[in-house]
Amino acid sequence: MRYTPAAKEMVLADWAHEARRSTIQDMLAVTAQPDILSFALGLPAPELFPTETYTQVAMQVLASESRALQYGPPWQPLKAHIVALMAQRNVICREEQVFLTTGAQQGMSLLARLLLNPLGTVLLEETIYSGIQQAIEPFQPTLLTVPTDRETGMDVDAVASLLERQAPPAFIYAISDGHNPLGTCMSLEKRRRLVELARHYHVPIIEDDAYGLLWYDQVAIPPMRALEEGWVFYLGSFSKILAPALRVGWIIAPEALLPKLSALKEASDIDTATFSQRTIAAYLAAGHLPNHLTELRQAYSTRRDSMLSALRSYFPRETKWHRPSSGMFVWVELPHEVDTAEILKVAVERERVAFLPGHAFDVDGSRRAAHCMRLNFSNCRAERIEEGIARLARVL
Amino acid sequence: MRYTPAAKEMVLADWAHEARRSTIQDMLAVTAQPDILSFALGLPAPELFPTETYTQVAMQVLASESRALQYGPPWQPLKAHIVALMAQRNVICREEQVFLTTGAQQGMSLLARLLLNPLGTVLLEETIYSGIQQAIEPFQPTLLTVPTDRETGMDVDAVASLLERQAPPAFIYAISDGHNPLGTCMSLEKRRRLVELARHYHVPIIEDDAYGLLWYDQVAIPPMRALEEGWVFYLGSFSKILAPALRVGWIIAPEALLPKLSALKEASDIDTATFSQRTIAAYLAAGHLPNHLTELRQAYSTRRDSMLSALRSYFPRETKWHRPSSGMFVWVELPHEVDTAEILKVAVERERVAFLPGHAFDVDGSRRAAHCMRLNFSNCRAERIEEGIARLARVL
Repeated sequence: MRYTPAAKEMVLADWAHEARRSTIQDMLAVTAQPDILSFALGLPAPELFPTETYTQVAMQVLASESRALQYGPPWQPLKAHIVALMAQRNVICREEQVFLTTGAQQGMSLLARLLLNPLGTVLLEETIYSGIQQAIEPFQPTLLTVPTDRETGMDVDAVASLLERQAPPAFIYAISDGHNPLGTCMSLEKRRRLVELARHYHVPIIEDDAYGLLWYDQVAIPPMRALEEGWVFYLGSFSKILAPALRVGWIIAPEALLPKLSALKEASDIDTATFSQRTIAAYLAAGHLPNHLTELRQAYSTRRDSMLSALRSYFPRETKWHRPSSGMFVWVELPHEVDTAEILKVAVERERVAFLPGHAFDVDGSRRAAHCMRLNFSNCRAERIEEGIARLARVL
Repeated sequence: MRYTPAAKEMVLADWAHEARRSTIQDMLAVTAQPDILSFALGLPAPELFPTETYTQVAMQVLASESRALQYGPPWQPLKAHIVALMAQRNVICREEQVFLTTGAQQGMSLLARLLLNPLGTVLLEETIYSGIQQAIEPFQPTLLTVPTDRETGMDVDAVASLLERQAPPAFIYAISDGHNPLGTCMSLEKRRRLVELARHYHVPIIEDDAYGLLWYDQVAIPPMRALEEGWVFYLGSFSKILAPALRVGWIIAPEALLPKLSALKEASDIDTATFSQRTIAAYLAAGHLPNHLTELRQAYSTRRDSMLSALRSYFPRETKWHRPSSGMFVWVELPHEVDTAEILKVAVERERVAFLPGHAFDVDGSRRAAHCMRLNFSNCRAERIEEGIARLARVL
């Protein structure tokens, strides 16, 4: 049988004509090449995965729990551990509010489906994680956007002004700590104000806290979910603090909405891998996480400092950046005439070093961040970071 | 902080007011109770999971592949194994047409999003797997439905007549083998005709073949994807032939559409667990699957025969059923005045035995199958099957 080129005649959903792989996904293939020194992706350091301990708990689970490879209802012991983990972020919640997901990305995808009508409205920052943009794209939404201040985070005055003038959006998407891609941390005052706006205008906030447990200089400010239970959907993840391949995250949501989320989840992928749920619960039950988190915070803050120091040594004077207090990213601003997408091509080809061009995070196809770059500091060892920044500087 | 009952005031997406957990999901909780003898769910037999072998390959993968717990692009060796596995179903495909998913359910969810506009049209059988109904529900689609013949499967004459009269639907959903819930197998003639209709009217078919490798009396007829490459999206899964908790399935799709699927997948859950991809590839590379499949086919055909024999011994004379040649289900038709949802309550409470009432699969809220029950025969050992059918008969 020969290939029938039917795809061209096939009628796709209207929005799908625009659907494209993200720059992140393209870079996943580029950076899988072993000789590439990559600052491109939000990858944790593989040499810091607790592989040995994980192997042990996985073996124990497989040997002792006959339902570990079966379909199953959400694993209650894991929910109990998540409640305890959330307390470290000053979030008080109950197991009945914990909804398990296939990573935080599924959390935002399910919440978009729960809250957003086709052609609905979403409020987010001008420069923001591409995953939320992809999650809402099929709804062909109207976007209300606000700028971000490099010191204090999301421009909440602009949020207030939009909410005053416009019909309420389906939700506000915000990242309080370890902002992706900007590396910023939202001030406590802004968190309080945003929560008040959510209450006042009856607009839910999706608070993406995938990086919230990775704080470096001091314990991070509590997330907005610590201030408001009814209007904040909190997204957490084990991807950055344990391992992405387990594909387990969670939503903290008002309990009344869990049956709806449950129906949406079932339609998406039936259940979150029971084997991952049980191995993570066993890992947490054995008390391994606190030391592991300490180790990650030490290693990543050292890497961050190496990157900042290398930027000072090698990058042109007119370059600007901010010292991130959490997360995995440094956002670098080059002079406005620079196009970092062009720089990236040369950097990969000639210097075998990769990063993400700022444009990958512009929400509305604007070229607002086309002169910026997102640099990840968690994935490479300190000496490689210096080497990589030196190489990048040669391209600049 | 006290609970703010905000959920009541929160504006959800229009369709979400109707969203409910499926009966399947409710039964997952009921049947997790250890004293329940369950024919309710499409669960493989946990004692037949290749747990020991899987533990070995998982340990090898964890010990030797540093990227096994990281995010990653789709694992090419797994795609190569899937191409070989598909050849056992007489499907000739290339790695470039294999798209990895978080189980077959994600396959149908992604394809619904790719092909279906809000308020679009879908063609499916009157009594069909609830997962496809959940996958399309957010689009509030118009449903075109056709009956199913117990001997030869989907009524393709009715499909032809609908396609002649109506604007073409976004897709046709069909299960050629091991039909869920009816246990039927579509005749080769009907497969040919349905494929011709798809070509003629330019309507894609989503062919759900999650149970297709579990044939018992003779090698199953090739699926429609073996007859047509351009208009058939084939869904496969390791859930029923290896273990559900690995959450790995696949779509065979026209190559030109893989970048779109890739964008959709990224928005849904970033990637399919790399650890699962690599352990399954290692399991397949070691050549374990053929013997395992033989073992499953022997065990499940024995269980099917035990169930049919117990039905003959214990069930009322006026009951009807069909001998399934593949899959995991026997569909039982009771007299029309019987309401199997009522029977289920009594069966669970008094006899500690569970099944799924036919109504759970009615597409349009009709009570067409309210007098039927779906009985799973793969999950219980033969002696338990006889015991369970005897208990169920006592309730009838």
